[in-house]
Amino acid sequence: MKAPRFGGMARRMNEADTQHRPIAAIILAAGKGTRMKSSRHKVLHDVGGRPMIEHLLASVEALAPASLVTIVGEAREQLHDQLGKRTQFAVQEPQLGTGHAVQQAKDALNGFSGDVLVLYGDVPFVSTSTMRAMVDRLNAADSPAAVVLGFEPANPLRYGRVIASGDHIEKMVEWKDASEVERGCTTCNSGLLAARAEDLFALLDRVSNDNAQDEYYLPDIVNIAIADGRNCAIVSTDTPDEVIGINSRAELAAAELQWQNLKRADAMEAGVTLRAPECVYFSYDTQIASDVVVEPHVVFGPGVTVETGAHIKAFSHLEGAHVGEDVEVGPYARLRPGAVLEKGSKVGNFVEIKKATIGEGAKASHLSYIGDATVGADANIGAGTITCNYDGYFKHKTEIGPRAFIGSNSALVAPVKIGADAIVAAGSTVSRDVGDGELRMVRAEQLVKPGWADRFHDTMKKKKAERK
Amino acid sequence: MKAPRFGGMARRMNEADTQHRPIAAIILAAGKGTRMKSSRHKVLHDVGGRPMIEHLLASVEALAPASLVTIVGEAREQLHDQLGKRTQFAVQEPQLGTGHAVQQAKDALNGFSGDVLVLYGDVPFVSTSTMRAMVDRLNAADSPAAVVLGFEPANPLRYGRVIASGDHIEKMVEWKDASEVERGCTTCNSGLLAARAEDLFALLDRVSNDNAQDEYYLPDIVNIAIADGRNCAIVSTDTPDEVIGINSRAELAAAELQWQNLKRADAMEAGVTLRAPECVYFSYDTQIASDVVVEPHVVFGPGVTVETGAHIKAFSHLEGAHVGEDVEVGPYARLRPGAVLEKGSKVGNFVEIKKATIGEGAKASHLSYIGDATVGADANIGAGTITCNYDGYFKHKTEIGPRAFIGSNSALVAPVKIGADAIVAAGSTVSRDVGDGELRMVRAEQLVKPGWADRFHDTMKKKKAERK
Amino acid sequence: MKAPRFGGMARRMNEADTQHRPIAAIILAAGKGTRMKSSRHKVLHDVGGRPMIEHLLASVEALAPASLVTIVGEAREQLHDQLGKRTQFAVQEPQLGTGHAVQQAKDALNGFSGDVLVLYGDVPFVSTSTMRAMVDRLNAADSPAAVVLGFEPANPLRYGRVIASGDHIEKMVEWKDASEVERGCTTCNSGLLAARAEDLFALLDRVSNDNAQDEYYLPDIVNIAIADGRNCAIVSTDTPDEVIGINSRAELAAAELQWQNLKRADAMEAGVTLRAPECVYFSYDTQIASDVVVEPHVVFGPGVTVETGAHIKAFSHLEGAHVGEDVEVGPYARLRPGAVLEKGSKVGNFVEIKKATIGEGAKASHLSYIGDATVGADANIGAGTITCNYDGYFKHKTEIGPRAFIGSNSALVAPVKIGADAIVAAGSTVSRDVGDGELRMVRAEQLVKPGWADRFHDTMKKKKAERK
Repeated sequence: MKAPRFGGMARRMNEADTQHRPIAAIILAAGKGTRMKSSRHKVLHDVGGRPMIEHLLASVEALAPASLVTIVGEAREQLHDQLGKRTQFAVQEPQLGTGHAVQQAKDALNGFSGDVLVLYGDVPFVSTSTMRAMVDRLNAADSPAAVVLGFEPANPLRYGRVIASGDHIEKMVEWKDASEVERGCTTCNSGLLAARAEDLFALLDRVSNDNAQDEYYLPDIVNIAIADGRNCAIVSTDTPDEVIGINSRAELAAAELQWQNLKRADAMEAGVTLRAPECVYFSYDTQIASDVVVEPHVVFGPGVTVETGAHIKAFSHLEGAHVGEDVEVGPYARLRPGAVLEKGSKVGNFVEIKKATIGEGAKASHLSYIGDATVGADANIGAGTITCNYDGYFKHKTEIGPRAFIGSNSALVAPVKIGADAIVAAGSTVSRDVGDGELRMVRAEQLVKPGWADRFHDTMKKKKAERK
Repeated sequence: MKAPRFGGMARRMNEADTQHRPIAAIILAAGKGTRMKSSRHKVLHDVGGRPMIEHLLASVEALAPASLVTIVGEAREQLHDQLGKRTQFAVQEPQLGTGHAVQQAKDALNGFSGDVLVLYGDVPFVSTSTMRAMVDRLNAADSPAAVVLGFEPANPLRYGRVIASGDHIEKMVEWKDASEVERGCTTCNSGLLAARAEDLFALLDRVSNDNAQDEYYLPDIVNIAIADGRNCAIVSTDTPDEVIGINSRAELAAAELQWQNLKRADAMEAGVTLRAPECVYFSYDTQIASDVVVEPHVVFGPGVTVETGAHIKAFSHLEGAHVGEDVEVGPYARLRPGAVLEKGSKVGNFVEIKKATIGEGAKASHLSYIGDATVGADANIGAGTITCNYDGYFKHKTEIGPRAFIGSNSALVAPVKIGADAIVAAGSTVSRDVGDGELRMVRAEQLVKPGWADRFHDTMKKKKAERK
Repeated sequence: MKAPRFGGMARRMNEADTQHRPIAAIILAAGKGTRMKSSRHKVLHDVGGRPMIEHLLASVEALAPASLVTIVGEAREQLHDQLGKRTQFAVQEPQLGTGHAVQQAKDALNGFSGDVLVLYGDVPFVSTSTMRAMVDRLNAADSPAAVVLGFEPANPLRYGRVIASGDHIEKMVEWKDASEVERGCTTCNSGLLAARAEDLFALLDRVSNDNAQDEYYLPDIVNIAIADGRNCAIVSTDTPDEVIGINSRAELAAAELQWQNLKRADAMEAGVTLRAPECVYFSYDTQIASDVVVEPHVVFGPGVTVETGAHIKAFSHLEGAHVGEDVEVGPYARLRPGAVLEKGSKVGNFVEIKKATIGEGAKASHLSYIGDATVGADANIGAGTITCNYDGYFKHKTEIGPRAFIGSNSALVAPVKIGADAIVAAGSTVSRDVGDGELRMVRAEQLVKPGWADRFHDTMKKKKAERK
């Protein structure tokens, strides 16, 4: 299929990986985040269907870093579980500030002598190209001791300011220590920083905790370097959204909305019709081809690809599913992992598909559950059909042949095969294979009781009257 | 359960009820509201799942007023039905202005001599603390004759202005009578007012209807008191949203959105994850514990509590339901009044639960209707299961034992009991009790007709060709 | 029914059609729209449930034009299919600018000598009254050679400017050719223009393509006429939204949102309660009476009418359906074309109705498919009922009598009739007619196997343990 993958935040990620000095990244994630009021570590909360730190990791990994160290503290076992061997870990305990946090990476970096990027697990949307720009600036002819990532927020609030002349930093200043003139400067410090490993750790050793919080602040290394007569530079992002930090559920929701809006714009730019983008939700890896129509109120969980000409109707929910060319989905279709809808097939309202392939031109239009199954081309699954795939202990397969017709309200007790062109009569519970071109009917005798209902109504009306 | 109750508009409501003079409240609700274009009285339209006047009443009742009088006119029987004995009623007919309306409360107040608050049924979000602040100001050392609630709207439009020096009112002025300088004043009159009963009615007797509308205006009492040399004070709300008035469906929708946004913010603040708060709708009494995840497109009707760790998936609709710890709901689950989902249970897609308890760890994952039932712990309800709870006259109960397995597409004809560990075979219609550990299968013979379907296809294809 | 029809964009459309000179309209639609990235012609993309060009056509047709010519180019067969004989077509190939496009209409107009309006297929929301205002201005006493539709956008960007004194145009100027002073003028050229046929084509003959794009620009005729000493006039719209152009999917989505917001406001103004207008989507022809309540998350496809007192609950999807007085729909109801719900009936969750009438007071509350059917008054359709209307080749009808009771999980194999007051027992598959007052039960014997389930559990638990 030719589904154009549309990226998330980091749209400018396709950098040619030219020759560079080796890079190491340090990700600060020691604080669990009390403002989240969660037993889950802050950086493990999802945006776009995956933990925020995974967004950051994807952007970092695109730089092919020689070394990656995540600084952990509280709830660190959760980070171990999530990230496994993709990063080294260093523990910061107690937590004495960002400068102190970075210092904890020193042993893990084990004499690494290239460029070091300092990143934050709760600032997950910094793009690879921005990271690269910081490193490139670090390697420019004027050899700065440190490169700071600045941004110009709509409202600079109480962010620390970067006082610079051109891209040369004159002073890093906390808001509370800033003069009126300095506060008037709208270039803010994102906290992200790049420096050569030897500079970074040498400067950090000289940072003091002589401040109200008794903490060691990372930005202090810039002022120390400047006092030494060293050169320090600022790189500014033109998309301040990429440095938003997430510290509460409200900020998480705001980040999700920002992310969704970018993803929606990307989809539309790629030729997808979103009738109401404001109520369509994507995941980080959603892939949708051009000339797909998505109606209002649709949710894409992770792992979905949709081919051209498909129509995703309102109130559909898709995850781990492949939707082929010209397929009709919904309204109210639920596609679960392993659902594969082949060209021109149709899955209609109140139908759930799980680990099942629906063949070309086949239809399951109403009120059905199709799980652990294959449905042949042009088969017709009647309303209310259920594949009974579970016996309480194991899952079993249902195989339905091409052009088979499953009458409404049937139950197919797996493992079971329905042959090509076979017909299952409405209301049948089929527990044995049905041959090609065979009719299977499982239906009791029609018991007829003329007048019975009339008598029943009389009796019940009396009873009802008595109870009142 | 430890679900933190998150409040609505009136977030600052937990006032310590200290010693005060007795309070009476008069609620003006005589106008039915022609701009609503409704046969329903304006103040009975819902916000957050309950009539707007109930929001106001809840805030008033928190003051424990000695007396409460609602002024009614058109469609007053609707207000009687809604409010019953929680308030006295006084009729205003004809309707000659707000001053005239307040006068109608005099008889009902029957010589009451404390502080009187004048409120409006269509200004429903004034908080208890704001009401209290008005009364407190009335009882301050300088003994004002009246206290007016002012607000500073983003756009002061044609609201009446309160010309004040400090918190002492110099003049109340209608927009149309205001000078340019007065119009430049952005402090507006909300209409709410507090005064001692004796002052209020004495001043009202002196208000004239010498104006274009021939109406008696309540704010005139302030100017009269000032002319007498009395002191009048303004209390200003810092949340102008609490004095919005609702006169049309568009304003109703705007109020609903404002209310929902506050409720969403409260939920997130309390540690609830709302992936897309903009499409989650709460009711006034929704209670959700921390570390609950709510996906996009979820509607909470009245009477829902959700315990920690629960996951409410997209497109779910809950009302009158209790969702226990670590329960999974949805997508597309409908929980109706009396649904109780115990710890770790699961209710999946296209499943409706009504007056039924789903035991710990039990599952009803697909396309089922479970009504008037109890489902034992760890029972498994197969796809397409229906409890036949209604015989056209009465509702009957279904009891399903622990660890029972109900095969897919089964109908359980209530009253009926399914024993512990029992199995109901797929496609069975069970009308008699099933014992513990018993298998019940209700299934006709499999009628096999080899070649029948092939012949049927041949015949029908011919017919179809003929009809064209 | 007295459902007030609420209009779309063109709310001021009810013009009295007084005596006028004949009008011809030329609609430019030669460009397929590469920025849409679609195989579908740009003007055929939907807004409010119908192709954008249909919105324009509806407004034009209200003027009763003597002649209508659509200028087509790429993908013109799509426009032929959509518009048929409602317009003449003229081909523009190659495409040498808007002036050149208009010239292609000359032959089709065949000597027409009245007023000509030049419109754009991708500027679909211009109202009839605006078009009328342009023509009226053309016929004013000062006989302008051309009338241009101007607008004042919030942000004038790089639109061409109309330099005018009063409503007399001094100069049309492209942004790139404009002086600083001219750019400061915020009156922009919408591109729409009216002129007498003889003036239009005579002036167009004098337009040159002496510009960077080698194109013939329509606005140049205004400057030529002015140079001739002719008078040209501007008519300005006070709703700049009506002249928005749609060139990309993002602009399409923005237009849809703008259109929906107008439609929502109209519905509320007409007395419809929209609890959450922001997530309710209408079609161009949706008709809803006053005192209807629409809950959040509802989608109206084309062809829906709803009568007063109806309640459309959350997550409902309606198209081609009529909802009678006091009917309850949803949540999760899907009404498809031909669904007619008579007074006081009820269609509940996970129920699909297609080409079926649900009689007064009848109920289908849960998990049902009712297609090609009539359901009598006060009938009760149990949960999980399916009308088996399709045999793989033809559709057949199901007729259910008044007060009939269809037990849960039944399948009605059409063609079939269920008599008045008849009862179908739960779980029955009914393939023969049921008489009035008759009971029909189709149910196999209850096979009872005490202890079987216990033995099964033992065996399976062992198997499961072995597989691990």
